[in-house]
Amino acid sequence: MHLAGAECNVAIGLARLGHRAAWAGRVSDDELGEFVLRQLRAEGVDTDGATRDPDRPAGLMFLERRTADVTRVRYHRAGSAGSALSTDQLRGPLAAGARLLHLTGITPALSDSARAAVTWAAQAASRSGIHVSLDVNHRARLWSRDAARAALAPLAAHASLVIASADELDLVAEAGSDEDTAVAGLLRRGVETVLVKLGADGARAYTREGVRHAPAVAVTAVDTVGAGDAFTAGYLSGYLDGLDLADRLRRAVTVGAFAVACHGDWEGLPRRDELPMIDGRPAGSTLR
Amino acid sequence: MHLAGAECNVAIGLARLGHRAAWAGRVSDDELGEFVLRQLRAEGVDTDGATRDPDRPAGLMFLERRTADVTRVRYHRAGSAGSALSTDQLRGPLAAGARLLHLTGITPALSDSARAAVTWAAQAASRSGIHVSLDVNHRARLWSRDAARAALAPLAAHASLVIASADELDLVAEAGSDEDTAVAGLLRRGVETVLVKLGADGARAYTREGVRHAPAVAVTAVDTVGAGDAFTAGYLSGYLDGLDLADRLRRAVTVGAFAVACHGDWEGLPRRDELPMIDGRPAGSTLR
Amino acid sequence: MHLAGAECNVAIGLARLGHRAAWAGRVSDDELGEFVLRQLRAEGVDTDGATRDPDRPAGLMFLERRTADVTRVRYHRAGSAGSALSTDQLRGPLAAGARLLHLTGITPALSDSARAAVTWAAQAASRSGIHVSLDVNHRARLWSRDAARAALAPLAAHASLVIASADELDLVAEAGSDEDTAVAGLLRRGVETVLVKLGADGARAYTREGVRHAPAVAVTAVDTVGAGDAFTAGYLSGYLDGLDLADRLRRAVTVGAFAVACHGDWEGLPRRDELPMIDGRPAGSTLR
Amino acid sequence: MHLAGAECNVAIGLARLGHRAAWAGRVSDDELGEFVLRQLRAEGVDTDGATRDPDRPAGLMFLERRTADVTRVRYHRAGSAGSALSTDQLRGPLAAGARLLHLTGITPALSDSARAAVTWAAQAASRSGIHVSLDVNHRARLWSRDAARAALAPLAAHASLVIASADELDLVAEAGSDEDTAVAGLLRRGVETVLVKLGADGARAYTREGVRHAPAVAVTAVDTVGAGDAFTAGYLSGYLDGLDLADRLRRAVTVGAFAVACHGDWEGLPRRDELPMIDGRPAGSTLR
Amino acid sequence: MHLAGAECNVAIGLARLGHRAAWAGRVSDDELGEFVLRQLRAEGVDTDGATRDPDRPAGLMFLERRTADVTRVRYHRAGSAGSALSTDQLRGPLAAGARLLHLTGITPALSDSARAAVTWAAQAASRSGIHVSLDVNHRARLWSRDAARAALAPLAAHASLVIASADELDLVAEAGSDEDTAVAGLLRRGVETVLVKLGADGARAYTREGVRHAPAVAVTAVDTVGAGDAFTAGYLSGYLDGLDLADRLRRAVTVGAFAVACHGDWEGLPRRDELPMIDGRPAGSTLR
Amino acid sequence: MHLAGAECNVAIGLARLGHRAAWAGRVSDDELGEFVLRQLRAEGVDTDGATRDPDRPAGLMFLERRTADVTRVRYHRAGSAGSALSTDQLRGPLAAGARLLHLTGITPALSDSARAAVTWAAQAASRSGIHVSLDVNHRARLWSRDAARAALAPLAAHASLVIASADELDLVAEAGSDEDTAVAGLLRRGVETVLVKLGADGARAYTREGVRHAPAVAVTAVDTVGAGDAFTAGYLSGYLDGLDLADRLRRAVTVGAFAVACHGDWEGLPRRDELPMIDGRPAGSTLR
Repeated sequence: MHLAGAECNVAIGLARLGHRAAWAGRVSDDELGEFVLRQLRAEGVDTDGATRDPDRPAGLMFLERRTADVTRVRYHRAGSAGSALSTDQLRGPLAAGARLLHLTGITPALSDSARAAVTWAAQAASRSGIHVSLDVNHRARLWSRDAARAALAPLAAHASLVIASADELDLVAEAGSDEDTAVAGLLRRGVETVLVKLGADGARAYTREGVRHAPAVAVTAVDTVGAGDAFTAGYLSGYLDGLDLADRLRRAVTVGAFAVACHGDWEGLPRRDELPMIDGRPAGSTLR
Repeated sequence: MHLAGAECNVAIGLARLGHRAAWAGRVSDDELGEFVLRQLRAEGVDTDGATRDPDRPAGLMFLERRTADVTRVRYHRAGSAGSALSTDQLRGPLAAGARLLHLTGITPALSDSARAAVTWAAQAASRSGIHVSLDVNHRARLWSRDAARAALAPLAAHASLVIASADELDLVAEAGSDEDTAVAGLLRRGVETVLVKLGADGARAYTREGVRHAPAVAVTAVDTVGAGDAFTAGYLSGYLDGLDLADRLRRAVTVGAFAVACHGDWEGLPRRDELPMIDGRPAGSTLR
Repeated sequence: MHLAGAECNVAIGLARLGHRAAWAGRVSDDELGEFVLRQLRAEGVDTDGATRDPDRPAGLMFLERRTADVTRVRYHRAGSAGSALSTDQLRGPLAAGARLLHLTGITPALSDSARAAVTWAAQAASRSGIHVSLDVNHRARLWSRDAARAALAPLAAHASLVIASADELDLVAEAGSDEDTAVAGLLRRGVETVLVKLGADGARAYTREGVRHAPAVAVTAVDTVGAGDAFTAGYLSGYLDGLDLADRLRRAVTVGAFAVACHGDWEGLPRRDELPMIDGRPAGSTLR
Repeated sequence: MHLAGAECNVAIGLARLGHRAAWAGRVSDDELGEFVLRQLRAEGVDTDGATRDPDRPAGLMFLERRTADVTRVRYHRAGSAGSALSTDQLRGPLAAGARLLHLTGITPALSDSARAAVTWAAQAASRSGIHVSLDVNHRARLWSRDAARAALAPLAAHASLVIASADELDLVAEAGSDEDTAVAGLLRRGVETVLVKLGADGARAYTREGVRHAPAVAVTAVDTVGAGDAFTAGYLSGYLDGLDLADRLRRAVTVGAFAVACHGDWEGLPRRDELPMIDGRPAGSTLR
Repeated sequence: MHLAGAECNVAIGLARLGHRAAWAGRVSDDELGEFVLRQLRAEGVDTDGATRDPDRPAGLMFLERRTADVTRVRYHRAGSAGSALSTDQLRGPLAAGARLLHLTGITPALSDSARAAVTWAAQAASRSGIHVSLDVNHRARLWSRDAARAALAPLAAHASLVIASADELDLVAEAGSDEDTAVAGLLRRGVETVLVKLGADGARAYTREGVRHAPAVAVTAVDTVGAGDAFTAGYLSGYLDGLDLADRLRRAVTVGAFAVACHGDWEGLPRRDELPMIDGRPAGSTLR
Repeated sequence: MHLAGAECNVAIGLARLGHRAAWAGRVSDDELGEFVLRQLRAEGVDTDGATRDPDRPAGLMFLERRTADVTRVRYHRAGSAGSALSTDQLRGPLAAGARLLHLTGITPALSDSARAAVTWAAQAASRSGIHVSLDVNHRARLWSRDAARAALAPLAAHASLVIASADELDLVAEAGSDEDTAVAGLLRRGVETVLVKLGADGARAYTREGVRHAPAVAVTAVDTVGAGDAFTAGYLSGYLDGLDLADRLRRAVTVGAFAVACHGDWEGLPRRDELPMIDGRPAGSTLR
């Protein structure tokens, strides 16, 4: 039994890097919900803004390594506590203030109320000058591309930072847009930075100044699940530290590489003093 | 503790692909024998034709992954229930009818009676118009190449389909024959198709029309044990579905690739709807 | 819980290859110390010369596979039984006679008395005509390079054989020496053979006759910890068997390859009849 | 991950004892649903009447051994495939014929359609002269006692055999009835036999001829979950074998004792030839 | 690998029961120290007052279940981070204020500085009107009874509450005192309450008003390690809630019973809503 | 995978208690045989007299904990290396000298040659003044009571010490003899001591001086397999130490209690300094 969840992964990634992070989700009021909060607290993520749902069960994800190459995921999230996320529940945590609000395209897929809540939070944060980041994170088993686009494209307009894999870009743009068109549209609508995750090829960052590519850090890949969230946590960490774009990207691909070279969604994420550990370290290195 | 056995693997492979498969072997009449039947039943393989031996113990195989590259197998099969397979026991199952009878070169290595039984079954099936396939499957720890050849070369003459790795071909031909000579001899003696398993290089299929090569499906190899049986199950599935040779081979290498990319002899074999799953899917793919 | 220790690994490696090997260390007089001796005895290593320390705890090593590529080691060895190794304790075992005394640069790092004991043993053995081998084995978490050099460079002068990785060579030479200079100095001071371990690139052996390179045996690497000790055990085995340098090196890289292709520090080391097993054997080989 | 389910347990118990048993439930059309069917098939339970639901997920049960004495269960069954059981789905299996239909009070708790389906099946079977047994099996986390009584009391009227623990009896009678009153009412409404499960105290069987008590078989209790279903399977096995009431009860408590003395819901259930195994066998017996 | 430590156990016990608890110890500045803090944070224990020691390793405890009845413990705590606890480190946490300071007789056994720190904290807390509790917790492997008495008897004079097993009482009194004499002396020196832990016989509480006995809650014992700390946490929880002595004792034996009926030192400790769970619940109860 | 074997258990028991013990059996010349020798060596048992059989496989025992109370054993020993034990193989070990030769009634059940070898050894030892002990150890799955009696009754005549459970006594006497008659016959035939193992009731020792009963040491029983061999090892240890009968019996029941209170056949056997550990120690004791 493992804690999983894109927002949790990012929050843990930031906490491990020494930032103060809080998670404002909705969990079941039972042992499974307590497990979620227990793990987040263990990692130093503030869970004061989390809500316990007295009526709904925990959302579940069954992850099967079907072959050495293919992992298959099944969700049991319909009617879960998380799907009942509501705007009211987010008012308090947002009022507590933050420099950054990170949202994903997964929560809006869970229910109407969750979608409304996320949209409200994006707007409210944006209006208060809080930096909003959105990771598209399309989950095909939760909704169609069209449904996702209808919800996420407007949401992206509130974000300063949009993160997507190449094949997710047109979910925050016109259907069928190519990368350049989609990015251009986002930048035009006020997004400051668009990060395109390229897996083993690293990432591209688009701003109004142009595009910059960062290669991936070469590591032995054992589990790519969570790598995107790790990348995002690394980037946001660099943003919070005031790094320039090149250094943010470098931190992003470094943290992503830790996720790829370790089992688990977030278990292998680095502490700040571990960041240099994988730089150019060949397989089979022993530090003693 | 795992169920293993070339014929079991093929039967399970066919059942997973939606075919009706039955297994007619001999098991010990104790918990170990029950374990064998339990697993086959679980996979939907008909075990009505299996026999419980009241006197003999289960055959055992000790499989040791000696290094990352080398697996070592020890057999405890002398005097086992399986070695007491007899012609009488096969009459019923064969009389029940089938489109296809699959045999391996392992069972004939176990005892005189087992060899006689397999030979009888091949003849009887062949005479009744049942398609007979034979996988050479040489086990050097069970018998010498000469002993194997003496038994298997005549057996092959009853088969429509002969399957062998390249270095097994001369066990169904003149000792020392090269591939072309061995294949030519088999085709001359009435075999319709000869499949040569080439591991990571795929497979070659010889018919009177000529030879066709199918490359392997590229996957991350974690356990090659059982890959040959998976290949065979895939080919036979294509045969039963009426596919042409090219499509049979493609299914064969696809099913074989599942076996290679999964742990266990048969545990990772695909259901029919999973066949497309590994086509061109890079390592680290997550289906969600 | 695993037994680990460079000298143990070498002793086990030699015992597996059929040589008589004894280990003369100091263990805690409790369950952990008994565990060390139990494992050595199991492997056929003579432990009559080992000492039980009634007062000090076992030394511990925490080994964390931090990522797929990086293993991190923490030592709890300060004040351990092993650190109290003394000259007196070694008199008996050395008096018992041996053809070969193998020492490492780890024990001298544990305490002043351990360093004195190792130095005494090297001198005494050398004077008695016992072949002395020294593996530099620098442990940065135990002492600095300068401290190591101050202890190990004099020690090396008593050795007939010095083994080091390329970046350890200047710990038995002038600080900052390059490979050629360091080796030349060692040979000048009486060392007969200098082995430079190159990991995946094999090894180089220097004698007064010149230099010889042996490539590594290609295997799938799953755990490089212990590979150096395995290499050493292979080389020493060849020495004891009277092989020439080329054959010693070949045995060394073969035994090292076993360590690399198996989990554990010594668990996968080969028996003599297993040595040919990995020669040119491709991944996924099954011996049956 | 384990298969659990009162009806499955009973079906497996009967199959292990050599009876032909079939299970007619509804499972998710994914790996979890396949797991359910796989286990049932392995045990020789006919699953031809099972239905795969293309839309709904598997029902789940989280079982936590909270202390050595207390096990806590949480259900995720709302909206599950099983909850969508419908009358139509049961027509075929019932038409296939049976001597006995076993129902539990759990399925009716899952949904209106499941309740209707169970009620229909009880009526239809009863009308066709099929012996109907009903185990009350109240699950407080699924519905209230009042809701259960409203559904189960009418259902009991179609049953020949009603099984309940002492505190469940008033769920098939007037609220608040004591044991005698509740039993009398059931017998008056046509139930032939009422079994009251008393745990470590064995069981009582009421018929119009009177009451009979059977003590439990003394075993070391390691897991009481599933003991009631095992008891039921034993009783039904005796019924199918034509045993008299005393012998049915004796088999019932014997099979129940196996469940109590083994881990798992059904994993330890006996084959017929194992029934004598626990008779008066003291703890620590070794059969060799 | 498990977190253990009497003070940790008590802090976790209180946090699980809904109290605010903080732990002020000293941990190694590495993965093992982080593990300690991680677990405490997970349980909601405030670790802001904990100190990371840059130089010393984690203290270790090896726990071996030697037989079903006897558990053997070995400590590696000499020179550990925890042994370097100092008065200075405790000033901040104590200045932060608390209603209660809980101390044990283990920490003073670790070093002179730890003993001084604990003594200072007891005095300072006592002077500030903070309720001080002391659990004698004698560890024979850490110090002799005489050494313990010399340190703990003076310490007890600062405590309002002293907790001991019957054979530990004379460690806070004259050597060789019987229970009555030892308790009388403590009460005379200002201790308000003396709790004597009696294991399966429950506990006795002495105050100036007299003595009260509380029987243990009957549960199946699977692991008595940590039961004393659980008892203490329960008592302190009752104190913080303003319960009277009888109710404090009842909560103490209830929480202790959870520890006894669960594996681990603290893993099975109850949340507040779970307290009624074990009241009179027979073995084999299933809550569903 | 565990080492098991009555003679091995006794040899390990003696070695743990500080005696020099050697084992002279026959093992397969493969990894399984090496495993047997490895475990014996680890325990300090001399294996120089063991023989490796180049042709026969290891004997196997499948041990299934069928319920909490009943363990079921299946042997695969027909044709095993152990069954090929021969007189010739025992000449060397016996010539090496010993104070004591321990034999069991299991080995004679394996084959004619094993029976002849054991009989020869008993005679030869007896003639050389070596104390011979025989544990009847009837294995019903290996041979009938009549076959056992025919072999063991003559064998017992060479023994100074005969050990049996109460229901095994008539296997070294007239069929159907009661305990007194059987014992009297043995004493008359020259046996000095007859030990009757009574499980939880302890043991009785008969000599010409009369009978003495020793109660069992009260411990929590978790695994009775191997308890008889532990009892025997304890008795023989007392014999070798020159203890009187009462003290031998006390050691016997103490060592037996360790086996009962620990999992495994021999894994929990005590070292000499551990013997006092369980004396009157209640369940849940922690030594720290």
